[in-house]
Amino acid sequence: MRMVDLIAKKRDGLVLTKEEIQFIIDGFTEGSIPDYQMSALSMAIYFKGMNEQERADLTMAMVNSGDTIDLSAIEGIKVDKHSTGGVGDTTTLVLGPLVAAVGVPVAKMSGRGLGHTGGTIDKLESVEGFHVEIENDEFIRLVNKNKLAVIGQSGNLTPADKKLYALRDVTATVDSIALISSSIMSKKIAAGADAIVLDVKTGAGAFMKTIDDSVELAKAMVSIGNNVGRQTMAIISDMSQPLGYAIGNALEVKEAIDTLKGEGPEDLTELSLTLGSNMVYLAKKADSLEEARTMLEKAIADGSALESFKVFLAAQGGDASVVDRPEELPQAKYTFELEAKEDGYVSEIVADEVGTAAMILGAGRATKDSVIDLAAGLMLRKKIGDEVKKGDSLVTIYSNFEDVSAVKEKLYENIILSSEKVEKPVLIHQSITE
Amino acid sequence: MRMVDLIAKKRDGLVLTKEEIQFIIDGFTEGSIPDYQMSALSMAIYFKGMNEQERADLTMAMVNSGDTIDLSAIEGIKVDKHSTGGVGDTTTLVLGPLVAAVGVPVAKMSGRGLGHTGGTIDKLESVEGFHVEIENDEFIRLVNKNKLAVIGQSGNLTPADKKLYALRDVTATVDSIALISSSIMSKKIAAGADAIVLDVKTGAGAFMKTIDDSVELAKAMVSIGNNVGRQTMAIISDMSQPLGYAIGNALEVKEAIDTLKGEGPEDLTELSLTLGSNMVYLAKKADSLEEARTMLEKAIADGSALESFKVFLAAQGGDASVVDRPEELPQAKYTFELEAKEDGYVSEIVADEVGTAAMILGAGRATKDSVIDLAAGLMLRKKIGDEVKKGDSLVTIYSNFEDVSAVKEKLYENIILSSEKVEKPVLIHQSITE
Repeated sequence: MRMVDLIAKKRDGLVLTKEEIQFIIDGFTEGSIPDYQMSALSMAIYFKGMNEQERADLTMAMVNSGDTIDLSAIEGIKVDKHSTGGVGDTTTLVLGPLVAAVGVPVAKMSGRGLGHTGGTIDKLESVEGFHVEIENDEFIRLVNKNKLAVIGQSGNLTPADKKLYALRDVTATVDSIALISSSIMSKKIAAGADAIVLDVKTGAGAFMKTIDDSVELAKAMVSIGNNVGRQTMAIISDMSQPLGYAIGNALEVKEAIDTLKGEGPEDLTELSLTLGSNMVYLAKKADSLEEARTMLEKAIADGSALESFKVFLAAQGGDASVVDRPEELPQAKYTFELEAKEDGYVSEIVADEVGTAAMILGAGRATKDSVIDLAAGLMLRKKIGDEVKKGDSLVTIYSNFEDVSAVKEKLYENIILSSEKVEKPVLIHQSITE
Repeated sequence: MRMVDLIAKKRDGLVLTKEEIQFIIDGFTEGSIPDYQMSALSMAIYFKGMNEQERADLTMAMVNSGDTIDLSAIEGIKVDKHSTGGVGDTTTLVLGPLVAAVGVPVAKMSGRGLGHTGGTIDKLESVEGFHVEIENDEFIRLVNKNKLAVIGQSGNLTPADKKLYALRDVTATVDSIALISSSIMSKKIAAGADAIVLDVKTGAGAFMKTIDDSVELAKAMVSIGNNVGRQTMAIISDMSQPLGYAIGNALEVKEAIDTLKGEGPEDLTELSLTLGSNMVYLAKKADSLEEARTMLEKAIADGSALESFKVFLAAQGGDASVVDRPEELPQAKYTFELEAKEDGYVSEIVADEVGTAAMILGAGRATKDSVIDLAAGLMLRKKIGDEVKKGDSLVTIYSNFEDVSAVKEKLYENIILSSEKVEKPVLIHQSITE
């Protein structure tokens, strides 16, 4: 088998076999297939795509390129959730305790990463003492006991995907449904999930800007999951504006606590219940999505979801008292209000630009050496469709430095008011199961 | 400017500017743009093509990536000929002396290369004493004096093209009209030609298998030449079978001598007169192609073409007496006849396979370390359309080793007889001037 022939085959729109895909991924991972051949193949895939079987084969070849996590010692069906990424997305913090409260085991491997805010681990580290440096055995024991634990990424998971993603990033071959879907799914599968719930964001603040593109990506991922024996569902949800109100690490922990108490933002609550219902259903803890949703609503109402969060934090060294006294979370030195300059209705909140404003405050990492300011961030006071009077606060800015004029300017540019009444965006567009 | 953005631009079918193309070729040549980005771009060009201006800009960027040859000290319009490559193509050996005889200056830079037979220099070295290791000044002096000289490739011509070609070869991006045409034209232009005559081969033995593809490539090259101020014409000629009879180094020199005497194969003679007429016309030594052809026919008839060859050989140390006594050229120890096994008509001579048979005999280089056997090769005795009786010789095999059974087997497989009468293929399909 020669790589140049396989590139030509894909270039000509033919289908690569499982053995050919395995040869490519093995050779690329070990270095016998050089980057310049892999990038040419990626561009050919960009133009010619891959069919369902090829995508499944590519996914599994990447899964098998490195270590895989064995979660078989955990009782029950392990359901993982993945979001394609947005701004102010606190659902992971809410969903873990929420579904754990109804008996769904959540064995979360998480990272830090770059972005507008920190990763799940950074956020959780807002809670004093909380840490994810636990042994594998302890991790398994905690999930079996409490149904929820979070561990830092370890091992050599999907090295082929890491190497390929880095290459695609500099060769204009990121935007390929075949390559995106197999990249995401390979990571979830290597991390040991039995079943997967996907939250595919759509809109201006998402990677996929249109519903059609989001549906295509969701269908591709669901097909891969189901093809390789991991039941998978996807929700297409709105990211035309940030989700919830909080954008920042401690701020999002506080918002998650509010949501678990039943006092969270409407959109975050609704999306958490929708995704959670799918998780509970896939974990076979309910016979229907409706039944699952009722169970979750009850867990919020009776305090068991909140209790689940406390137990989880305490088990990993965290001071669970913050759940009752969120004022003990890291607090910024200064707060500033972004006042509306005129009357009107909020018509647009450019999510990624608002996220960048939070990053400038220190909430996220611009480079992997950046230090995160856990207290810094933004609380939106208005969302799209809300009526605003001149002088109302649009956003509260939490900062540890005094001069936030650049942040204010960025926010004014990206929170647009209209004199006409504006409809609230639809939150959940579609559910995809095959 | 970032390469990844330029790849995306081409991927999306947009037009690259002259400055962008210059940035790409400069960066790739010096190494600041890595192979993996260049191969992704090449694949994007494979799918999206380049317009006429982009091809011209790419050509000139590659010309300017290295040295260029200054032929301005040579009087008159220097016309170069380029063939896209075939089997048994002796036209270069014929054309040099032929057009030099009517006053067209031919300053030929030539190479050795891989292939079924050696390059022009290898072939000429069949003549004892002939050498191409001459100084640049001497080269110029000889062209001014005799209108013909050949020098070995020197200097760092079109390094971008060399590097890009090597990359395309292993990334399945060779078959792009934009990249092929600019590659060929960059080399001709860097070598100093004022005007260029292209012989674009078509058919089973050629790189371009169909007339349509050949015409497309020819038009692309003519457009580049004319766009960058080098008048260019192209002839589409048949390569469904080898040209002439000889495939081998000394054998082709002998065939060239025959042709310059007016006693050569019909197809080689006709193609040489056609290409030669275009060269004479572009050199402004005649006002029409008809007038040019008459001049060349006269040069053959009156012996001045043959005399031109003698003078050229002698000027570069060669024993010109071989022109009158071709038996002094290197002779193979053995000759074998490939006898027809049945009556019929030759319907097919698979050019590249027959060429490979010659290479097996030692006529060409399989790798750059191979040593060429100047005497070895094949003389076709029949061409497509010829009637054959059982026992007639189809080919004479010239070999310095005694066991040629593998060569015979290959030839029998690739020279096909039919019981039905077969038409001779059309030799010259089209002339392209814009």
